[in-house]
Amino acid sequence: MSSSSAAPAAKPPMRDALVAAAFRLFLDRGYEQTTVDDIVALAGVGRRSFFRYFPSKEDVVFPDHERCLADMTAFLAAGDEEHEPVRRVCDAARMVLGMYAENPAFSVQRYRLTRKVPGLRAYELSVVWRYERALAEYLRGRFAGRPDGTLRADVIAAAVVAAHNNALRSWLRSDGTGDAGAAVDHALGCVQRAFGHAADASAEAVPGGPVPAGERTAHPDDVVVLVSRRDSPVWRVVQEWESALGRP
Amino acid sequence: MSSSSAAPAAKPPMRDALVAAAFRLFLDRGYEQTTVDDIVALAGVGRRSFFRYFPSKEDVVFPDHERCLADMTAFLAAGDEEHEPVRRVCDAARMVLGMYAENPAFSVQRYRLTRKVPGLRAYELSVVWRYERALAEYLRGRFAGRPDGTLRADVIAAAVVAAHNNALRSWLRSDGTGDAGAAVDHALGCVQRAFGHAADASAEAVPGGPVPAGERTAHPDDVVVLVSRRDSPVWRVVQEWESALGRP
Repeated sequence: MSSSSAAPAAKPPMRDALVAAAFRLFLDRGYEQTTVDDIVALAGVGRRSFFRYFPSKEDVVFPDHERCLADMTAFLAAGDEEHEPVRRVCDAARMVLGMYAENPAFSVQRYRLTRKVPGLRAYELSVVWRYERALAEYLRGRFAGRPDGTLRADVIAAAVVAAHNNALRSWLRSDGTGDAGAAVDHALGCVQRAFGHAADASAEAVPGGPVPAGERTAHPDDVVVLVSRRDSPVWRVVQEWESALGRP
Repeated sequence: MSSSSAAPAAKPPMRDALVAAAFRLFLDRGYEQTTVDDIVALAGVGRRSFFRYFPSKEDVVFPDHERCLADMTAFLAAGDEEHEPVRRVCDAARMVLGMYAENPAFSVQRYRLTRKVPGLRAYELSVVWRYERALAEYLRGRFAGRPDGTLRADVIAAAVVAAHNNALRSWLRSDGTGDAGAAVDHALGCVQRAFGHAADASAEAVPGGPVPAGERTAHPDDVVVLVSRRDSPVWRVVQEWESALGRP
């Protein structure tokens, strides 16, 4: 789980009370059948208080995305040239996972609700789109001037979001049991291997596989000699190359 | 441009007239300011005719997506084990491009409209999501039983959609000038190189680059010997490997 560069803002208790009241009603009588008036009545506050925190009923379903988007954008903006770009966007994606994993019961409830209400699904797609654009914009900046820079940025951002969401959905479907962080790390690891930089590799590489750990060196000029069948799929060549570098 | 496996259904003239009337009004007075009553009045038909073709005002903005989704699903279902899966989903994505390229002026108009109206943007995201799911479901079937099969399927589907949309957007922003097909082919080629199978490669490969064309053979058991700096990013290794295979 990555920590945000900005300290998380304290959540006002009234805001939390509104979210709790809303979800109790959504689960009891259904999302469509619940009005903002019902929510404020149960929370014991006025309508104006509701709209101070949430522009619409949909927004109370996703109370933390705006904060998470802001944190993620700040995290990306705080990066410098030393951060390998693909790793940086993977770390940014882990911030979203952190938001879900903070409160598994709430996240699972919301997942079930979102699957039942088409309007919420559409809302969620627009949020996912905003995360993806934040990652893509960062990568576009990092890849500026390179051939196919915007193409690479868009493709990698989409791959990161898809990998993150694949792991997140599995975790939500398992009712929030299991290690969400490990699942997302594994999924993002696949994307990093496909697109990332190998500057952190430290294994000696020879044809046929890694040499014993005792013989590892860290000269950046070392070469990898890879022997592959030429009808191998690209991903297998990448796997072999990773393996030659001594990575799992 | 891939052709669909199903013959395109003839478009009823009344449906076309409704689309034409709707777009004339959207451009003249704005999307939000145009009602279904305005559209049917201009087209000279009754409200019932409108709703026979379009469930809502939003649907008239995207009159061909349902057909295209159906065609794409049929195209994917018609594939067999001989089709390399990543190439197949790239070909499926080209069907969407074909729909846009069929009528550049209309596609550019719609692009501008969609960027101005948040509701249409949300609608479009849900359509893109359905395309992506169609590709992912196909790949999940093809990768069934493989380690990380669903993860790979989701990531590749997202990468294909992102690459397609990157090229499509560039073309739409250039007012539909230029060769949309070539731009999408280039973008999808990058995804195929990252994730696809190289069974169609026919170049001899030796360290340092391809041998002269006259010496090329096509033995599938031939090996590629690739020498790379070990701090090369994965994508560069893939590029070198492609280049060793004699591919551009």
